[in-house]
Amino acid sequence: EKNTGSDVWLPTLVTETPQEGFALAIKLARMGVKSTQSDKEVLFREREKYSQDADSLIHASEVIAAYFQTVAAANNYWK
Amino acid sequence: EKNTGSDVWLPTLVTETPQEGFALAIKLARMGVKSTQSDKEVLFREREKYSQDADSLIHASEVIAAYFQTVAAANNYWK
Amino acid sequence: EKNTGSDVWLPTLVTETPQEGFALAIKLARMGVKSTQSDKEVLFREREKYSQDADSLIHASEVIAAYFQTVAAANNYWK
Amino acid sequence: EKNTGSDVWLPTLVTETPQEGFALAIKLARMGVKSTQSDKEVLFREREKYSQDADSLIHASEVIAAYFQTVAAANNYWK
Amino acid sequence: EKNTGSDVWLPTLVTETPQEGFALAIKLARMGVKSTQSDKEVLFREREKYSQDADSLIHASEVIAAYFQTVAAANNYWK
Amino acid sequence: EKNTGSDVWLPTLVTETPQEGFALAIKLARMGVKSTQSDKEVLFREREKYSQDADSLIHASEVIAAYFQTVAAANNYWK
Repeated sequence: EKNTGSDVWLPTLVTETPQEGFALAIKLARMGVKSTQSDKEVLFREREKYSQDADSLIHASEVIAAYFQTVAAANNYWK
Repeated sequence: EKNTGSDVWLPTLVTETPQEGFALAIKLARMGVKSTQSDKEVLFREREKYSQDADSLIHASEVIAAYFQTVAAANNYWK
Repeated sequence: EKNTGSDVWLPTLVTETPQEGFALAIKLARMGVKSTQSDKEVLFREREKYSQDADSLIHASEVIAAYFQTVAAANNYWK
Repeated sequence: EKNTGSDVWLPTLVTETPQEGFALAIKLARMGVKSTQSDKEVLFREREKYSQDADSLIHASEVIAAYFQTVAAANNYWK
Repeated sequence: EKNTGSDVWLPTLVTETPQEGFALAIKLARMGVKSTQSDKEVLFREREKYSQDADSLIHASEVIAAYFQTVAAANNYWK
Repeated sequence: EKNTGSDVWLPTLVTETPQEGFALAIKLARMGVKSTQSDKEVLFREREKYSQDADSLIHASEVIAAYFQTVAAANNYWK
């Protein structure tokens, strides 16, 4: 899995605030999609669809919650 | 992820009571949706749909449960 | 999230027994639905539907499991 | 949630072996369904359906996994 | 849950390596299905279906992930 | 589960960086699919389908998140 040379987009899970941790969870959720489909046109086309559909939006929030669990634990809940 | 200047909506995961923790989990679930779709009209239209459908309502509760796991751990289960 | 004045339905996550913890997880799952849809008529109508459908019933149990994880951890697994 | 008088079906999360822990997770998953729908006829009818469908069977295993996480942690993984 | 006499298929969650832990998670996922549907013909018929469908295959991996979380924690992540 | 002789693809859960941990989570998600369906033609055909569909892409990211929770905990969040 050594991806030397390719860009470093995830240097750390540590953030200063819970809000930045939530933003990182959103980024992780999106990278999970991009790692499966990197074609921007497909992503743009599909975004038009899922961002207009309640169940897809609820599902997207669920994915963010799963990553946020990890980021929050990584930051000891910013206590 | 530094969102300086933009409004601070998540200063902390700490709440005084489990009930406030549950309310924060609901807020996180909704922010997960808003971070994906910020258009209020779309959100309002879709809310009309999902809030009338059993499976969507069960799914919404599932997302709240995922955030509540994090908030409860952050507060050491208010013990 | 301060809901002063409104009724206190979640004073604590602590219960005496695992069975009471399971009952609390069921209550949390239902409050997750009610926080999204408070209209009793809609809830009653939809209950008729999902309580007759296998996949919805499996999904409901899944949501209870997510809350039960939190309640069980909050009670140190009643050991 | 005090269910005094009603039968005690969940005295403890502790089991002697992982296999008994898995059996308890199955029982919890089924009680999650029964707490939502107690009518045996409906459960029997729906069981005929979901036990014949791949996605429902995968979903049922997923629910058992969520309860097994809790039971395994409660037993310190039977180490 | 005492299943004395029936075969012992889950003596322990401990494995020597992460790869064996992953194999155990796959076994647990399949036992979760078998505990719900033991009829080999039904399982074979349905396997033909879900093993040919992307969403079912993604869902199967998700179930393995939930069991792998438990097996990995049981083995202290093989550190 | 002893798979002596077969190739060793998961020697450890330890990685040097969060980004490598994320890559390992993607690999685990894919191995979860391959363990269920090893036929490359089927996988290639189905990839064409799910990589073009928003809900499948969101679901794929959710599966990666579940494995990433385990990998991150295994690496003590790379702190």
